[in-house]
Amino acid sequence: MAKNKAPRRPRAETPKGFRDYFGPDVTERKAMLDTIAGVYHRYGFDPLETSAVETLEALGKYLPDVDRPHAGVFAWQEDDEGGKGDWLALRYDLTAPLARVAAQYRNELAFPYRRYAMGPVWRNEKPGPGRYRQFYQCDADTVGAPSVAADAEICAMLAEVFEELGLGGKYIIRVNNRKVLEGVMEVAGILDPAEPSRFEAERGIVLRAIDKYDRLGEDGVRALLGEGRRDESGDFTEGAGLSDEQVTKIMRFVNAKSEIDSRMHRYWEAKGSPNIVHDNDPTAVALRSGGVGRSTQAGRAQTPESSNEMLKHTVAYLLEIVGTSEVGAEGVEELKHIAEILAAQGYPPDRIIIDPSVVRGLGYYTGPVYEAEITDEKGRSSRFGSVAGGGRYDDLVKRFTGQQVPATGVSIGVDRLLAALRADEEESGTTRGPVVVTVMDRARMAEYQAMAAELRAAGIRAEVYLGNPKNFGNQLKYADKRGAPVAVIQGEDEAARGVVQVKDLVLGAKMAEGASLEEWKSQPAQREVPREEMVAAIREILERG
Amino acid sequence: MAKNKAPRRPRAETPKGFRDYFGPDVTERKAMLDTIAGVYHRYGFDPLETSAVETLEALGKYLPDVDRPHAGVFAWQEDDEGGKGDWLALRYDLTAPLARVAAQYRNELAFPYRRYAMGPVWRNEKPGPGRYRQFYQCDADTVGAPSVAADAEICAMLAEVFEELGLGGKYIIRVNNRKVLEGVMEVAGILDPAEPSRFEAERGIVLRAIDKYDRLGEDGVRALLGEGRRDESGDFTEGAGLSDEQVTKIMRFVNAKSEIDSRMHRYWEAKGSPNIVHDNDPTAVALRSGGVGRSTQAGRAQTPESSNEMLKHTVAYLLEIVGTSEVGAEGVEELKHIAEILAAQGYPPDRIIIDPSVVRGLGYYTGPVYEAEITDEKGRSSRFGSVAGGGRYDDLVKRFTGQQVPATGVSIGVDRLLAALRADEEESGTTRGPVVVTVMDRARMAEYQAMAAELRAAGIRAEVYLGNPKNFGNQLKYADKRGAPVAVIQGEDEAARGVVQVKDLVLGAKMAEGASLEEWKSQPAQREVPREEMVAAIREILERG
Repeated sequence: MAKNKAPRRPRAETPKGFRDYFGPDVTERKAMLDTIAGVYHRYGFDPLETSAVETLEALGKYLPDVDRPHAGVFAWQEDDEGGKGDWLALRYDLTAPLARVAAQYRNELAFPYRRYAMGPVWRNEKPGPGRYRQFYQCDADTVGAPSVAADAEICAMLAEVFEELGLGGKYIIRVNNRKVLEGVMEVAGILDPAEPSRFEAERGIVLRAIDKYDRLGEDGVRALLGEGRRDESGDFTEGAGLSDEQVTKIMRFVNAKSEIDSRMHRYWEAKGSPNIVHDNDPTAVALRSGGVGRSTQAGRAQTPESSNEMLKHTVAYLLEIVGTSEVGAEGVEELKHIAEILAAQGYPPDRIIIDPSVVRGLGYYTGPVYEAEITDEKGRSSRFGSVAGGGRYDDLVKRFTGQQVPATGVSIGVDRLLAALRADEEESGTTRGPVVVTVMDRARMAEYQAMAAELRAAGIRAEVYLGNPKNFGNQLKYADKRGAPVAVIQGEDEAARGVVQVKDLVLGAKMAEGASLEEWKSQPAQREVPREEMVAAIREILERG
Repeated sequence: MAKNKAPRRPRAETPKGFRDYFGPDVTERKAMLDTIAGVYHRYGFDPLETSAVETLEALGKYLPDVDRPHAGVFAWQEDDEGGKGDWLALRYDLTAPLARVAAQYRNELAFPYRRYAMGPVWRNEKPGPGRYRQFYQCDADTVGAPSVAADAEICAMLAEVFEELGLGGKYIIRVNNRKVLEGVMEVAGILDPAEPSRFEAERGIVLRAIDKYDRLGEDGVRALLGEGRRDESGDFTEGAGLSDEQVTKIMRFVNAKSEIDSRMHRYWEAKGSPNIVHDNDPTAVALRSGGVGRSTQAGRAQTPESSNEMLKHTVAYLLEIVGTSEVGAEGVEELKHIAEILAAQGYPPDRIIIDPSVVRGLGYYTGPVYEAEITDEKGRSSRFGSVAGGGRYDDLVKRFTGQQVPATGVSIGVDRLLAALRADEEESGTTRGPVVVTVMDRARMAEYQAMAAELRAAGIRAEVYLGNPKNFGNQLKYADKRGAPVAVIQGEDEAARGVVQVKDLVLGAKMAEGASLEEWKSQPAQREVPREEMVAAIREILERG
């Protein structure tokens, strides 16, 4: 009979590409974000929390992948206005909402407006292994500060975040300037200051090609700058169509880092310096191993002197490749200024470095760009890779107001940074469970609850077993699964005698693993104590553990 | 020319019904949630964070307003599967995702599973003043605990949350049991234990009518129980169609609180007790003022004795009105048990009370229900009203698995509770801004940054002014808008002499308001100190403020 047919049950499944976070996943991320917020606060940044939902028009087409404007977001139309409702969407980053806020509250906020924001963002992309459609970002931005001092400040603050998270000596922050690339593009004839909108498509292709250097290598990038590139699957990506001469000019930028490194190498060789054979010098390591490209060149300099020398060589080379371009020279000048400000603040020159190989894929950057990488103790790239990136974007607010508002900021990839932190701290993931008060006698539930309350009042995490108490073995299994350090047991007999059994579950587990019968007897994992000494006995066990 | 026409600028607006949170709005809420999480943790609850997005089928039709199943959520269809994509939606509460998690991970989790969750939820409703479409919830639930000890624990924990937030003496938690109402419905002939699905629609109307008592009053509820009700606007709401006799039976439940209060009144009168004339007794106040209904009857008892007496009278009355109904008697028994457990834990009987007027609008509750209200010092209702509510819902997980899983939990209305806390603490909203290092000489930016870094290293929140430094007045206006306590000033002259000007902006503002010329001179708000004494001088000012 149709009427009695059971309705199909809904599937109990996290939607594709989303995930659930349990226990330590939540608390460890929170602890990390609290530390970061503390640093941001100390630098004068104020928190801002916008809602998850924005109008699609406010989000605009500034999606990370400019190949597909308007794709990649979760969007829907307001339904109660006869088909004319606004299109709403989940934010895909924290920068677009900031641009909206800076425009909307431009008369109320104190500018320069330093703000930080942390929270989930959403991308409507094909989920894959380790690729989620909701993830956390943690941003700090300064809106309304035209000077590159604001960019330097963000880099310094980022360094302090890593130091405070206990990653001292295990990170590197690389700074570059888009204007240098613009200068190179001008020299290569694909940027005309008199007609900025010409060659826009070509410049977009060049930018994305350079950003893919790590994956495609030099030949792949060259192909994309020229006619195009066919990948292993046979798919063809159209190139920028540049001439060989133009490609050569762009490649002088792409290969800037290795060219500067070679010059440094020759310089130190001529001076007979020990720098290039120092074991801890990743530049030297890279050179010895013949490696090229960003990933093997942390470019870490060892002393203020070598760092200064590196800066000099970098500036000289960059001035060469930007030739007569005004914007290019401006970019080089800004990089120098950032380096000076950071040096004056005492930032170790091997932590924040000028690195011409940094590009950042996003189209909207207009000046300094920066990214941070977690390294091993020797400053070499680790498997965690880039954990933060940002730069100056002077045009985002202009979309709303028509007036250019200078802005710069960084976004920390929370999940990657957390993974790096966890790998760094061994004891992670082993959060201790609560003390479990077992239930021997259902009628005495109120007394068990009172025991737990007493423990909590003493600051000890505690709970009463609230499942079906019939099978006592299940209660101990539960305590084990919860990671409980101690179980409290009081049956009718113990209650009559005014005592409780206190069971040390950590010791018990250890003894079960390998203790001899003698040990079992000499160090009992379970002992009887007077009811009024319960809290003291448990505290003793917890302090021992 | 169409080509050169400027594109229409997007509106810089928060979408309708959403809002932005700035500075203290964010930090004060965070501090409150941190305190709540601390209490939950101590009770053995573990954090869970699910994503904002669920499949629509997992959310189900358990929306708060059962009149409109499936309405009220923000939903969209996955677009990349030829029109057959899943429907996704933003979660409308934290309970539906918990039910999904409890079913999905039923083999991995340790049951009973105590979890807490905090985060935004979304409702696709018409926005109105103070009505937002995204707001925070903060929930604690126990899944897999059949005993009402779990409900008692949630109530105790809720009381501890309020105590720890500094609201001791300013809250009241009311507990009732749906089974009592079910018993009354059975007696009134609209619940047949042998055929539970009969009269479902009628019971839904009755439930919602009772929950609207505060707004509609006794006559309004009676109308909805009978033929229906026409409101001032002329709209007609259909009633449950009960007979006068049935309505009378239901109204004995609706008026339980005032009936019990009257009986208590007569009881104390007969005993000649001072209780009914005690000024602090809101029950007495309500009776004197002739008030009826929930909002004027906090029902707070003054002593363990009077509280015991109240419980006895309540139990007796409830047993009367549930007559021969088994489920009704069970409900009364459970209420008694909860009261006993809480008393054994030493919860003040005037903080957590049995109150038959509590119903809770949600259809899914199956046993104990509870809600918390912020009161004034005398225990009387305050403008903040109900700030938390919850109850037992034994059928939510069953939707997925077919097996009944007992569960109970509470949801705290974060915004309301925060408003109550802010009203309680005077100094709220006046977060102190950072020390502002002004820029007199653009070429010395690196040195200004170094000053700010020095202050931060000493634990003092500090920032450099990063706007256009030309107009110095603007810099001081900025410092004022930021709530900066101190401004640091160093021009060329000061730099040459190795000093800085330290300006006490708090004192300065006070003096500008009302100081005489003499005072201005005797207590200068700005003084010159040697550069190396800058940090000490500023610390002194901050400690004074």
